[in-house]
Amino acid sequence: MTLPLIDRRHLDFVLHEVLDVERLFRLPRFASHDRPGADAIVDTAARLAADVFLPSYRHLDDNEPIAENGRVVLPAATGAALEAYRQAGFPAMTAPMEHGGLGLPRTIANAAFVHFQAANISIANYAMLTSSAAELLAHHGTPSQRQRYMTPMLEGRFHGTMALSEPQAGSSLGDIRTEARPLPDGTYALRGSKMWISGGEHDMGENIVHLMLSRIAGAPPGVKGISLFIVPRRRLDADGRPAIWNHVALAGLNHKMGQRGTVNTVLNVGEGGDTIGEIVGRPGDGLACMFTMMNEARIGVAMGAVAHASAGYRLSLAYARERLQGRHPDQKDPASPQVPLVEHADVRRMLLQQKAVAEGGIALALYLARLADLKAAATEPPARHDAALLLDVLTPVFKAWLSEEALAANNNAMQVLGGAGYTRDFPLELHYRDNRLNPIHEGTNGIQAVDLIGRKVTMAEGRGWKLLLDTMQATAAAAAIADPELAPLGARLGEAVERLGRTATRLTATAGDRGRRHAYAHATDFMELAGTTVFAWIWLEQARRAHGLRAMAPASGRDFLEGLILTCRHVFETVLPRGEAAAGRIAMDAAWHREMTDAMLG
Amino acid sequence: MTLPLIDRRHLDFVLHEVLDVERLFRLPRFASHDRPGADAIVDTAARLAADVFLPSYRHLDDNEPIAENGRVVLPAATGAALEAYRQAGFPAMTAPMEHGGLGLPRTIANAAFVHFQAANISIANYAMLTSSAAELLAHHGTPSQRQRYMTPMLEGRFHGTMALSEPQAGSSLGDIRTEARPLPDGTYALRGSKMWISGGEHDMGENIVHLMLSRIAGAPPGVKGISLFIVPRRRLDADGRPAIWNHVALAGLNHKMGQRGTVNTVLNVGEGGDTIGEIVGRPGDGLACMFTMMNEARIGVAMGAVAHASAGYRLSLAYARERLQGRHPDQKDPASPQVPLVEHADVRRMLLQQKAVAEGGIALALYLARLADLKAAATEPPARHDAALLLDVLTPVFKAWLSEEALAANNNAMQVLGGAGYTRDFPLELHYRDNRLNPIHEGTNGIQAVDLIGRKVTMAEGRGWKLLLDTMQATAAAAAIADPELAPLGARLGEAVERLGRTATRLTATAGDRGRRHAYAHATDFMELAGTTVFAWIWLEQARRAHGLRAMAPASGRDFLEGLILTCRHVFETVLPRGEAAAGRIAMDAAWHREMTDAMLG
Repeated sequence: MTLPLIDRRHLDFVLHEVLDVERLFRLPRFASHDRPGADAIVDTAARLAADVFLPSYRHLDDNEPIAENGRVVLPAATGAALEAYRQAGFPAMTAPMEHGGLGLPRTIANAAFVHFQAANISIANYAMLTSSAAELLAHHGTPSQRQRYMTPMLEGRFHGTMALSEPQAGSSLGDIRTEARPLPDGTYALRGSKMWISGGEHDMGENIVHLMLSRIAGAPPGVKGISLFIVPRRRLDADGRPAIWNHVALAGLNHKMGQRGTVNTVLNVGEGGDTIGEIVGRPGDGLACMFTMMNEARIGVAMGAVAHASAGYRLSLAYARERLQGRHPDQKDPASPQVPLVEHADVRRMLLQQKAVAEGGIALALYLARLADLKAAATEPPARHDAALLLDVLTPVFKAWLSEEALAANNNAMQVLGGAGYTRDFPLELHYRDNRLNPIHEGTNGIQAVDLIGRKVTMAEGRGWKLLLDTMQATAAAAAIADPELAPLGARLGEAVERLGRTATRLTATAGDRGRRHAYAHATDFMELAGTTVFAWIWLEQARRAHGLRAMAPASGRDFLEGLILTCRHVFETVLPRGEAAAGRIAMDAAWHREMTDAMLG
Repeated sequence: MTLPLIDRRHLDFVLHEVLDVERLFRLPRFASHDRPGADAIVDTAARLAADVFLPSYRHLDDNEPIAENGRVVLPAATGAALEAYRQAGFPAMTAPMEHGGLGLPRTIANAAFVHFQAANISIANYAMLTSSAAELLAHHGTPSQRQRYMTPMLEGRFHGTMALSEPQAGSSLGDIRTEARPLPDGTYALRGSKMWISGGEHDMGENIVHLMLSRIAGAPPGVKGISLFIVPRRRLDADGRPAIWNHVALAGLNHKMGQRGTVNTVLNVGEGGDTIGEIVGRPGDGLACMFTMMNEARIGVAMGAVAHASAGYRLSLAYARERLQGRHPDQKDPASPQVPLVEHADVRRMLLQQKAVAEGGIALALYLARLADLKAAATEPPARHDAALLLDVLTPVFKAWLSEEALAANNNAMQVLGGAGYTRDFPLELHYRDNRLNPIHEGTNGIQAVDLIGRKVTMAEGRGWKLLLDTMQATAAAAAIADPELAPLGARLGEAVERLGRTATRLTATAGDRGRRHAYAHATDFMELAGTTVFAWIWLEQARRAHGLRAMAPASGRDFLEGLILTCRHVFETVLPRGEAAAGRIAMDAAWHREMTDAMLG
């Protein structure tokens, strides 16, 4: 019997009590689904994750992919797990039924997928990349491209990648150089070098579909000159079967600190032979198309971070309950039995921080998934539009703020175990190493911070931003009039949202170049302010529901609900004040970033 | 030419401008030393560290020690580096001349040693353990023990270990069970199992001297029943030469996330043959004697953390200056050249946090070393006594607070490099992994926090604590009357010290069991308050001196001094408010630690 790495009771609480996903099943698009079916899918994911993904978690860290004659050799466990995942139908879970998918709400699919991420992120990554690539083609591919490339991905036969970065262009995608030369038949010959490509080469499945950014010869510099291409590892023949090699050459592997089971490659295209690509969308629209996949990947990354936080919490909690060590300060008799670690207040503190991140993170992850569902399936256009805006605004906050907090949670998980946590005999150090990638990839957290203040706050005349503030204020107001226990929390959230709104207004008020540099210099402070506020809000949403249920709950369920309310209070006492401090730093507008020259750094 | 991992200009600034170590050379004990000699020793350390320690940094991570037939096989690089270290005379650097040492002030020795820690902590650890073990015997050993065990350690022929923990007793040393049976000749036969013993078995040098805690048969339970023993790997013959094996059996290796080159062992003693030990000090005084070594090790651990922070800072700064990526928000022309990372405000933020920790950490490390020198060598007894008290109070703060901040610094170092920082092609991820041990070993940071509020604040009727507060207030007062630039910082430090003093008084005021549990529940908050205050204080000490020198400095030196003053302001703006927040949490006395039952954790 494996320890569950995601607490199912809490997951169900979020799905059914906080988010009321059954309302989604009433939307025409999801009408063929129901709660028993959704529960069964989550059950299956939990079981497969424990039985097929988890056992090789350490093995894949010890046995990194190796390159042999231009091919990548992966441990067999990876392909075996993905085959079980495929057979259970997971690759096509969320794709619309008209595209051959199961049309499951993303909320349910993500509640399932987080189990795979918690159990073995290195394998889950392949599945996530393929799903996101399929999603991109569902949106931007032609019917023929969907049929030839997307359908095999939904069937789990082809894999997908994102091929964006280049050695000289990571965060600065406008500087990519890979060139696409138009061929007479409408396809393109690509030539260049791509860096940091996860799953860029391996022998699983029948083919790899690289979604590759490139410049059509003569395109303008910068992002406006970027187009998107389907670049298969093996070209398809007339019947859509993978045939000859497309000269996507493995130029090297990146050896990482963690997530070692996900092969990360340097790829050269157009070397020693043509690499043929098909354009997706219009020339120059490459980055916009890519963002369909990128946004999904960012949410996936943060969900992975939350999965690690949850795994770390469950594992360190179990250890803390079992391991006897020390006594309370007032237990003077050295011959008295030692108490379990969980009894010590300082250990309790480290557990509670983890609980807050793990469960607040799950709630936020599924809230975002529900926004994606409403964006795709709400019956009224304004509802779809609002959901899209809110999702856009929340994505960088979820990605950046939660991935930092989740790493801090894994740090605490290790610390609870002490020396044991630092050894490779326990999985905590591996979760910690794996999780450390999340603040970096799919746009570093610095990039996310700049995206939030530099773009998301002001986009669509600030309507998405206002929607977020209004949504959080509604929760605050509802709590404030609820009852004496929640009212102070409602009032404090209200103040925090006010502060967030004011700060955003001030930071974006100074027009022109000086204003932008000023805002960028405080981007991470602003992210801290936004993240702490959003986190307090999602916790208050959980606490409100828990509070409503508590009176009627049987004794057996009351501890669980009470624990949520106390955790919410703990978040308000320990996390929310950090936002206030960040607002203080912005208001002070400390001069170091202007006064400190490079030479002064030493 | 290797990049220096410790900035020599700053090191000299601390030694000579802030701490004025030349005053130490005027003390009788250090009278044979002078600045040119001290400088030469630091030069030698910097060169040896770069030439002999650094080259195998990655190699030792890739090639962990292995156990073969009960022996540990280390990569040859470890022994070769320690041999060079020995030949340069480093093992005997600080030992008093009457014991055959060089009698160098610890301030200089540590300024030298931090180079080895920055270059290759896994090798430096062996040297540190041996030095600390020798120091313990200098204090507590008999003349015969010093001659037979300490002298060979000072000569670099024997190595030392600390053998405290056991499988069932890590943080809770009172629960150790290893038993010592008195033998007719006054020695003891030990039997038990020791856990987490760094350097517990290897073939370097002629012998390993385990300083092992054990209970004499019939001793009372708890810490009062613990005695300390010299347990050599090979027993000495009548001439003091290592002879037959002492049945200290390798029972296993602990495989760590980092610091892999320092072998960590499980040892069984008294299995299949007698393990003979000599008692050090009196029966029952074991823990008190051990604390000579333990306190030294705690300072060494924090110094190691600072060394990693410094290495990470220098490496990420060099990278940020070289790597071109992106443009300023107002550089609209995508064809314009990319700017170096260091130009971006958010990267600057991450560099500045590192600079603050690296250089503030060095200053604090050497301040503590100077206290150790004054404790040992000040001519007036009250000066020795005060230095000892202040050192006692500051040790847990330096160990716990700095090791957390240093890890955050390495986290930022990796983040500056982005994806590259996460790969094993760069040393940042290795510094980060290695550094993660420091909040755990030699007493977890939770234990340090409890030591501070539960013991150090109140010991000697609170005189050490008051000394710390007075020392910091003196700096605040001097800055407040200095000039308009530093006065506001002096005033703010004054308030922070007031707050720290008030909080300590309040936390220790509630007598009895309830009071202790209450204080322990806020131990980490109190550590944050104390750490941020001490850190601001040491930075104001640096800024005051930099300020004093700036007016007279040549243009070439002004940037360096200005950078220190700005970093100090940055610390006051970003770090000091965290202490205020921690005081707020303590004052609020949130109820979670009392109300949250185990069942509510989920």
